[in-house]
Amino acid sequence: MLRAIDLNADLGESFGAYTMGDDAALLSVVTSASVACGFHAGDPMVMIATVQAAVERRVVIGAHVGYRDLQGFGRRAVAMPPAQLTADVLYQLGALDGIARANGARVAYVKAHGALYNTAAVDAEVARALVEAVRLFDPSLPVLTLPGSEVSNACADAGLRAVGECFADRAYDSSGRLVQRSRPGAVIHDHDAVVARAVAMATTGEVVADDGTTVPIRAKSMCVHGDTPGAAALAAAIRDALQAADIELRSFA
Amino acid sequence: MLRAIDLNADLGESFGAYTMGDDAALLSVVTSASVACGFHAGDPMVMIATVQAAVERRVVIGAHVGYRDLQGFGRRAVAMPPAQLTADVLYQLGALDGIARANGARVAYVKAHGALYNTAAVDAEVARALVEAVRLFDPSLPVLTLPGSEVSNACADAGLRAVGECFADRAYDSSGRLVQRSRPGAVIHDHDAVVARAVAMATTGEVVADDGTTVPIRAKSMCVHGDTPGAAALAAAIRDALQAADIELRSFA
Amino acid sequence: MLRAIDLNADLGESFGAYTMGDDAALLSVVTSASVACGFHAGDPMVMIATVQAAVERRVVIGAHVGYRDLQGFGRRAVAMPPAQLTADVLYQLGALDGIARANGARVAYVKAHGALYNTAAVDAEVARALVEAVRLFDPSLPVLTLPGSEVSNACADAGLRAVGECFADRAYDSSGRLVQRSRPGAVIHDHDAVVARAVAMATTGEVVADDGTTVPIRAKSMCVHGDTPGAAALAAAIRDALQAADIELRSFA
Amino acid sequence: MLRAIDLNADLGESFGAYTMGDDAALLSVVTSASVACGFHAGDPMVMIATVQAAVERRVVIGAHVGYRDLQGFGRRAVAMPPAQLTADVLYQLGALDGIARANGARVAYVKAHGALYNTAAVDAEVARALVEAVRLFDPSLPVLTLPGSEVSNACADAGLRAVGECFADRAYDSSGRLVQRSRPGAVIHDHDAVVARAVAMATTGEVVADDGTTVPIRAKSMCVHGDTPGAAALAAAIRDALQAADIELRSFA
Repeated sequence: MLRAIDLNADLGESFGAYTMGDDAALLSVVTSASVACGFHAGDPMVMIATVQAAVERRVVIGAHVGYRDLQGFGRRAVAMPPAQLTADVLYQLGALDGIARANGARVAYVKAHGALYNTAAVDAEVARALVEAVRLFDPSLPVLTLPGSEVSNACADAGLRAVGECFADRAYDSSGRLVQRSRPGAVIHDHDAVVARAVAMATTGEVVADDGTTVPIRAKSMCVHGDTPGAAALAAAIRDALQAADIELRSFA
Repeated sequence: MLRAIDLNADLGESFGAYTMGDDAALLSVVTSASVACGFHAGDPMVMIATVQAAVERRVVIGAHVGYRDLQGFGRRAVAMPPAQLTADVLYQLGALDGIARANGARVAYVKAHGALYNTAAVDAEVARALVEAVRLFDPSLPVLTLPGSEVSNACADAGLRAVGECFADRAYDSSGRLVQRSRPGAVIHDHDAVVARAVAMATTGEVVADDGTTVPIRAKSMCVHGDTPGAAALAAAIRDALQAADIELRSFA
Repeated sequence: MLRAIDLNADLGESFGAYTMGDDAALLSVVTSASVACGFHAGDPMVMIATVQAAVERRVVIGAHVGYRDLQGFGRRAVAMPPAQLTADVLYQLGALDGIARANGARVAYVKAHGALYNTAAVDAEVARALVEAVRLFDPSLPVLTLPGSEVSNACADAGLRAVGECFADRAYDSSGRLVQRSRPGAVIHDHDAVVARAVAMATTGEVVADDGTTVPIRAKSMCVHGDTPGAAALAAAIRDALQAADIELRSFA
Repeated sequence: MLRAIDLNADLGESFGAYTMGDDAALLSVVTSASVACGFHAGDPMVMIATVQAAVERRVVIGAHVGYRDLQGFGRRAVAMPPAQLTADVLYQLGALDGIARANGARVAYVKAHGALYNTAAVDAEVARALVEAVRLFDPSLPVLTLPGSEVSNACADAGLRAVGECFADRAYDSSGRLVQRSRPGAVIHDHDAVVARAVAMATTGEVVADDGTTVPIRAKSMCVHGDTPGAAALAAAIRDALQAADIELRSFA
């Protein structure tokens, strides 16, 4: 039974004159900040501001790496040779880590963003290219991913640590996988229900699947969001409920 | 009197399918490689290949930082607030250093490229923004610049080491500054004359200015080029002549 | 005395997943929409949506051309050779016009954005490069600019029509020029005062300068904003007041 | 039996300081120039220079549209919603056409580049998105594609004209399709053989497939290349041989 969990969120997704998400609110909630590295979102000024705010809040910093596609916000898969993907990810890791070190911190974990997250979860070649970049940069860094994903497999093969994450606002099937977003009921919109699921997941390490069975979540981190209206408030409610249930909020890194 | 000098060149300026310069030839010549960091030239794949080739040749790696302007190859000054420039440079330093560390090396010095090099040499605010990025990243890194430039001043103010560079193919005036490119005779095209000047500079630490006077070059590094036809051959001839004159070729970093 | 005026605003400045401004509200207010062309803001999807919304509202479409600098939102001057600037502007004009034609409209005027607007107003070479692009594309297109600017001069030299614009929320000096933003009182924040100035400008063709003298505005268009909280409401209040004062709202193009 | 054929090539693929291909040589060979539009290659200065050179040589101008991916040179498929692809293509068409009109010409046909060419050939949704952009821009423009491709089908459905192209340096299978590049013998490297195939294709409208059967090429245009050493010379040899065989070289547009 889990009695501690990490809360992670995507942060630093603003770009130039454009604002995205409520980073200030989320930094009061999460224990891990996945910071965009300028390829799918973020820019050097935003990265510095985000890192500094995370350091002040004692939030652990992770590199949120993505496809180089600002126009698509990293949500469009780019079919590139593995060596190119490894290079792009390595570049992002170094860029964010340089900013972190300049502010007395370090990149402590890696999480892929958007289309790269989804593609790497199911495509072994993409997963290996992603994990290879982490291995080259620092093989002690854990990689946050879906439990049982190809990224997990690639980490195992490369001797890296994969850390599973769970989603309190998503339905699971009886195999413990997320129900695809396109299917009805895949996303749970009722905030009270989401909060209750979050507490149940963190307390029991299990979730009730869409067929009523109970399945393990195999996760040390729970992903919360800040990019839609009400999202930061929901994240805060989850944190409050977890703390009220005597769950320790603690980074996995 | 100098009996040792560094030879530096800009490297890693290819981008995607586009090739620029003769990096393989130059890496046999130089002791310091200023590697483009993806903003004005270069991309992550090119950076990795350049770093690996430099490591193999035991050539010291510097970060060649520039404006984010691939279309203009970093040759167009961008009027940006100092904090933005500092952030952009810090980002580039981290990105290249991450790639260097993944290949058993480190960024050992910093040199600005193109319009940033020229603007920082004469604009104190731009110089301070550039130097601040180096200070934040690693204050032990020397900055390669024109002797007597605003970058030198900013380094002095920030406690960083500025290293002067000289140009065997450029005319100097009696104050020891480069004659502006727009003026006749500013660039010396005769290869034999360039080689002779290189040896004289490295041997005496002085150069004959355009008015016949002799002025000190105040430089520990000499810049050679590889991006025009015949440039790499000239660079090799300079190296050969320096070695024949018993000048030690040695990195300043 | 003016009894008709155009209201223009910058539109289509969203980019990918990033939203900027309240375009829907502004399209109910303005008679001219200056649509970003993808260099400083906007993307092809945003451009299509903005053009279609403008066509539905019978709002005239202008090309809001800028420096290719999404990170800086076109607010950073880029020191480029005139031929490069002309080429960049011509490219943007064609791109927006293609989208306009595909939706039964045309680009009907040109306005520079941000740093390009400001630089071209005072730098004759930049002004000529901008105007040359318009001349090459379609010399019948008017160019919206500050009255008396270098863009006006360049238009006169090239046989193009320059159209002056005024700002109800900005202080003017006794020469009829805008008081620089950095000076106190340069921007008028009281909404009632702005509305009153707008009506006075449109009714009399004059404005009271910061020294109490009355100066002509020499403008056929008034610029309103939508990118700050309350801006769209102010724009709507200006429109209502102009109509209540029996001023005809009419495009200049 | 064909007695006339078009020769097309990709042109204007240089970018900023980077040079690609031998455009001057190819413009003496081809009757149709597929000009890059700044997304996968090219920039506004390059586009203007290429259009002007094509106009001088009386070479017909086509829009070579691609994914927005300079780093990948348009060779990496980007999985984007169809409406985004339509918008990106429409934008490119307008940009090049504006430059063409400023030089007394027009875009006369459309050809997709690299990964977009290949993906649209086999993916009906991508093909429809591409063709929809052409239809919106100007439904009278022909689209150059592989005979029998999904682009041909989408053109037929939309009432547009698809024009087939053939490749003298590629092997065909007995169904009249190109042998995939990954298979041995897919690319014919012997220049004499390529020239002989070109003449045979243009004379008979047929090609000998890899199994010895004879299949129709269904093409009005033949693609030649200029981006590898010797390519421009081969293209010139093809042109000379076609003319010697009394084949008329004539644009399809």
